Amino acid sequence: MRSYDRAPNQMRPLRLTPGFIGNAEGSVLIEIGRTRVICTASIEDRVPPFLKNKGTGWITAEYGMLPASTSQRNQREASKGKQTGRTVEIQRLIGRALRTCVDLDKLGEKTITVDCDVIEADGGTRTASITGGYVALALCLWKKREDFNAIPLINGVAAISLGVKEGQVVVDLDYEEDSSIDVDLNLVMTHTQQIVEIQGTAEHAPFTETQLQDMLRLGKSAIGLLIQRQKECLSQAGLTTAWLA
Amino acid sequence: MRSYDRAPNQMRPLRLTPGFIGNAEGSVLIEIGRTRVICTASIEDRVPPFLKNKGTGWITAEYGMLPASTSQRNQREASKGKQTGRTVEIQRLIGRALRTCVDLDKLGEKTITVDCDVIEADGGTRTASITGGYVALALCLWKKREDFNAIPLINGVAAISLGVKEGQVVVDLDYEEDSSIDVDLNLVMTHTQQIVEIQGTAEHAPFTETQLQDMLRLGKSAIGLLIQRQKECLSQAGLTTAWLA
Amino acid sequence: MRSYDRAPNQMRPLRLTPGFIGNAEGSVLIEIGRTRVICTASIEDRVPPFLKNKGTGWITAEYGMLPASTSQRNQREASKGKQTGRTVEIQRLIGRALRTCVDLDKLGEKTITVDCDVIEADGGTRTASITGGYVALALCLWKKREDFNAIPLINGVAAISLGVKEGQVVVDLDYEEDSSIDVDLNLVMTHTQQIVEIQGTAEHAPFTETQLQDMLRLGKSAIGLLIQRQKECLSQAGLTTAWLA
Amino acid sequence: MRSYDRAPNQMRPLRLTPGFIGNAEGSVLIEIGRTRVICTASIEDRVPPFLKNKGTGWITAEYGMLPASTSQRNQREASKGKQTGRTVEIQRLIGRALRTCVDLDKLGEKTITVDCDVIEADGGTRTASITGGYVALALCLWKKREDFNAIPLINGVAAISLGVKEGQVVVDLDYEEDSSIDVDLNLVMTHTQQIVEIQGTAEHAPFTETQLQDMLRLGKSAIGLLIQRQKECLSQAGLTTAWLA
Amino acid sequence: MRSYDRAPNQMRPLRLTPGFIGNAEGSVLIEIGRTRVICTASIEDRVPPFLKNKGTGWITAEYGMLPASTSQRNQREASKGKQTGRTVEIQRLIGRALRTCVDLDKLGEKTITVDCDVIEADGGTRTASITGGYVALALCLWKKREDFNAIPLINGVAAISLGVKEGQVVVDLDYEEDSSIDVDLNLVMTHTQQIVEIQGTAEHAPFTETQLQDMLRLGKSAIGLLIQRQKECLSQAGLTTAWLA
Amino acid sequence: MRSYDRAPNQMRPLRLTPGFIGNAEGSVLIEIGRTRVICTASIEDRVPPFLKNKGTGWITAEYGMLPASTSQRNQREASKGKQTGRTVEIQRLIGRALRTCVDLDKLGEKTITVDCDVIEADGGTRTASITGGYVALALCLWKKREDFNAIPLINGVAAISLGVKEGQVVVDLDYEEDSSIDVDLNLVMTHTQQIVEIQGTAEHAPFTETQLQDMLRLGKSAIGLLIQRQKECLSQAGLTTAWLA
Repeated sequence: MRSYDRAPNQMRPLRLTPGFIGNAEGSVLIEIGRTRVICTASIEDRVPPFLKNKGTGWITAEYGMLPASTSQRNQREASKGKQTGRTVEIQRLIGRALRTCVDLDKLGEKTITVDCDVIEADGGTRTASITGGYVALALCLWKKREDFNAIPLINGVAAISLGVKEGQVVVDLDYEEDSSIDVDLNLVMTHTQQIVEIQGTAEHAPFTETQLQDMLRLGKSAIGLLIQRQKECLSQAGLTTAWLA
Repeated sequence: MRSYDRAPNQMRPLRLTPGFIGNAEGSVLIEIGRTRVICTASIEDRVPPFLKNKGTGWITAEYGMLPASTSQRNQREASKGKQTGRTVEIQRLIGRALRTCVDLDKLGEKTITVDCDVIEADGGTRTASITGGYVALALCLWKKREDFNAIPLINGVAAISLGVKEGQVVVDLDYEEDSSIDVDLNLVMTHTQQIVEIQGTAEHAPFTETQLQDMLRLGKSAIGLLIQRQKECLSQAGLTTAWLA
Repeated sequence: MRSYDRAPNQMRPLRLTPGFIGNAEGSVLIEIGRTRVICTASIEDRVPPFLKNKGTGWITAEYGMLPASTSQRNQREASKGKQTGRTVEIQRLIGRALRTCVDLDKLGEKTITVDCDVIEADGGTRTASITGGYVALALCLWKKREDFNAIPLINGVAAISLGVKEGQVVVDLDYEEDSSIDVDLNLVMTHTQQIVEIQGTAEHAPFTETQLQDMLRLGKSAIGLLIQRQKECLSQAGLTTAWLA
Repeated sequence: MRSYDRAPNQMRPLRLTPGFIGNAEGSVLIEIGRTRVICTASIEDRVPPFLKNKGTGWITAEYGMLPASTSQRNQREASKGKQTGRTVEIQRLIGRALRTCVDLDKLGEKTITVDCDVIEADGGTRTASITGGYVALALCLWKKREDFNAIPLINGVAAISLGVKEGQVVVDLDYEEDSSIDVDLNLVMTHTQQIVEIQGTAEHAPFTETQLQDMLRLGKSAIGLLIQRQKECLSQAGLTTAWLA
Repeated sequence: MRSYDRAPNQMRPLRLTPGFIGNAEGSVLIEIGRTRVICTASIEDRVPPFLKNKGTGWITAEYGMLPASTSQRNQREASKGKQTGRTVEIQRLIGRALRTCVDLDKLGEKTITVDCDVIEADGGTRTASITGGYVALALCLWKKREDFNAIPLINGVAAISLGVKEGQVVVDLDYEEDSSIDVDLNLVMTHTQQIVEIQGTAEHAPFTETQLQDMLRLGKSAIGLLIQRQKECLSQAGLTTAWLA
Repeated sequence: MRSYDRAPNQMRPLRLTPGFIGNAEGSVLIEIGRTRVICTASIEDRVPPFLKNKGTGWITAEYGMLPASTSQRNQREASKGKQTGRTVEIQRLIGRALRTCVDLDKLGEKTITVDCDVIEADGGTRTASITGGYVALALCLWKKREDFNAIPLINGVAAISLGVKEGQVVVDLDYEEDSSIDVDLNLVMTHTQQIVEIQGTAEHAPFTETQLQDMLRLGKSAIGLLIQRQKECLSQAGLTTAWLA
């Protein structure tokens, strides 16, 4: 039996609370089941050194977990003095996914940093960060829309996790499922159902092409729902149709 | 004019939301004006090396700020690879204050880590961390009360900031006041109105003993109110009278 | 036109030189086009802390590039004092892939470290590291075969890169192709054509499911050839049939 | 019985040796009882980034202990690769106190670094560093007086430690007293008896307002004596009356 | 009996493979017995800060060992996050020796970095790095000769290790000899038999002046042979006589 | 003309002040000209991991410079977070030299750390550290002589710097000479005139064997005088003849 009495193709309950952090240009609290992530987007008039004087901008992401967000307290990375390999991998993934959403030339010489801070973790924190990160990013661009000649948003993105559990393909794994599962696949897609990122890992038991196809099918459907929910949240926050990629 | 139309001796509105983080043994979201801090307390069956085999426990604190908690995004300490001097100072202060609350011998060979993570900063984050940290700590001990022979709580503590603003003593500074003020004093007191910590700094203009006395008087009164609010919160969460230091 | 006058479905010339490093228990120099990687496997009678006293072993990987391996000299990570996010990601990928090859219970309380050091880089260093890393790992286990009750090898693995270049799917990208391409996919499969890892990224332009299917088809075929070449190399080095997963 | 047969309100013997380090622009060896600190002040024609092009200067402090300065050898921070929280706190305190002494606008775009290196530690090293640091700072400014249009010294400062020992307030704690005491208070005051910094800590047992008042009274008297000794030292070193804040 | 059946005054077999790394401006694989080092020289149009706008160039060296180069795998310095004292010492030695070879004024505002990466270690890696490093450096300058008005090479250098083994002076120690020997001396000389560096260490038993003279005599003779082999290698690679210092 | 009107073969004035740091088991302030180094020796009942349970001890050294010890303030290594290559080289040299003095088996499972902290630098700090470090070490062993069955001191050592200045060999270089000189040689010898360490460097112009012989001759004579002064200092501090190696 899955948490929240779900069928294999059902996601956990989702809630998006836009404007959760007043100091940020764009922010949202995303809750999917018991997983909760604060996503904020901050815009600055600078670009990283490799983009100096190229007339183009940059989107980057950072990811962190509060020490008490996990069932066993995890050590604070700031006090360890370094980010784990897992953190680095996740924030690179989020950054790549969100860069797909923006026309960096139209953004101009600005950097948007999307921070995803997990306050409670129950599986799927990296996909929730992408789904919520897109909302924070869009809110930030909308708030600063006077600064742009043209709408810099070109894609919407959302992400979901999938797995093979006792031979059956399931969507949106919680922590317990994630720990016991054979195959773990994270899928990021655009609002037009194109693939932005696919990361499938089978440390314990390799998987077949058929299973891959099944996961793609379920993932595509779930991401369609997530995109719908993002749009509702953004239009309630005032974004006009032209802005909703 | 002060924020929230306050008189010099008035604090900003306070809200305590116990149980804010489900995975932690004790947790609270403390909001004082626009300053918001997630405080969690996690208990572990270990002690730091210098306490091995002494039959006594330990309370420690860690402090962090989300990058977007401040009006200008501040750099993530985990990615810088080190905590700033300010962070280290603050978490040492919180730790000392909370150790005053607990009889470490009755705690036994356990360590409680109180994490104070600022999600939005508008001045007074260190004093809010102490006031909220005490609530998280008490909730954690209460939840684990079966593990103790005797109640290990011996003091309640709360903290407030004070300053001298254009010659007048004021309580509970917000960020704007804090940045422009001459004197900055943080006061930590117990539920019996004894002093746990007093830290007064006058980088720009030294202050007189009279001003110190005025700050003590205002601080004592404010802390009395905070202690009252902590008790209400804890008793609503089920702590019986004997547990309320 | 592709380097080495290749068709879209052709890999660059491959050479495997087993026993390249005398001090290592298993080693190979893998050369694929101008990309050259020294892979070594070292076995030690210890396990990481999280496996203490569980009767099982561990396979881990480390990855590095000589500073002059790239066309522009890259800074030595040891002198920078930290590994880049890219390095960390790659060595985690190699480690996961190689753990699929070994029955960790039959390995017993031992750790095998596979080091992949790129001495010349022309694209595809992470996939070459996996393909070569498997050979070094198998040679190491073979050399120490007296220490095991049962053959601990359960899978062969190899890996290849794929991409979409001007709308056409191509296999085994060199550096120039890799830098200019829209989609970058790394595929790791077993000797029985099951998927171990699939990592597809489309930072610049999302890709379609059809393109994903085409890349899978080409990748499967290329990996089949790589597995064949690994087997030849290992059987020349003396591994008997039973050992060739 | 206190060391040096002192009454509760008596300090240990004090000695100031100006010009102790020939290479520094200003220097002094301060000895208070067995505590000995080398204080030097070095002036440079640069300001930290946050003060660039503002026409104002900066005073900063660094603090260190020789490994063999304590009764148990303490590990060298340079070989550990980081400064402890205690060191960071102390050098921030010294810096704040010494900035009170100087009119940073009259200083112009210069930075003075005051280094306080403890060669022997017997309690009170942070307060000795402030008292000695002021002497080094004044000597440095005097030596470079040709570079200033106006005298940049505006305050003299000195500091002392206080505590509550078995219910009685005592001044200038040595190491043994400091380790066993209930309350520890460091007081920094100007030559006009105003408060620059007050830091009182009661980890073991909170203290009363009456005890605070008693400590302030004793501290004020001790600091008066220290200021007198600083003036004698500086006037012997040639500083004219106008320079003695 | 010595390895390779050598007399005390005989070196191990030497092999120089120029052009071993295609991406580097100059490179060689030096093999002396079982010790193998990849030496590369990379030239860049920049100088370190202390040479800015002085019209002169710089030669620097970096040294590393592959983890599996030693009989016991040694930990990767990049993953430890710091270079050992031994590594730092060796790369400073190589840098100093190679700077003797070049007229830095004629080099102009360029930096050449010589990387010496040990792929297999059997004693004498630092001296092999110097001998091979010179070849890589000369090849790099030759390849870029169009960029210079005058030949910047002014000296050839080579290096060898010596020791006292059971009272007898021996040349070119392998790992086993090096570990058991009383005195360890590294000698760097120019093609005109002048001393560039002499580093003799006698941790276990001090040595006499007579032994020093014997080591100098044997070392001078060995270095003469190494210089001859370097010249042959370089002239086969096309360097004309005028370039062979 | 040399500082202190010295002839080429004359050292600067030397002063040894034993017992300079009361908390250390052995200590001395060594002053040679304007170079001043505090040397302390601290003994602990532990050995480094590689000597566990071997019944033998260890001598190690650490070296540091106060920031204001040089004519230009140098950055504090503790705040930079790492020791420079120069520091690491020097402390390894001091450690090797002092290990020659002690029979580590007779020392037993103890570690002596010799700290050499330069409070003022005018050339020759590493050789002064060795000469002073020996005195601190001997005083430490003498103070703890009850703990040993046999005298663990087997050699006296001292060290001096030499150079070639405009073609002439000179002894004991001050900072100005050191900066401008062609050849720099540090020599460490025992009380029986055997060589412990010889480190000669000629970055700018290689030197001849004749110059090497001249430096050895002058160095031997200077070290003879230093050993005499060490003996006087130690015998005044109470060491009996048997203890003076």
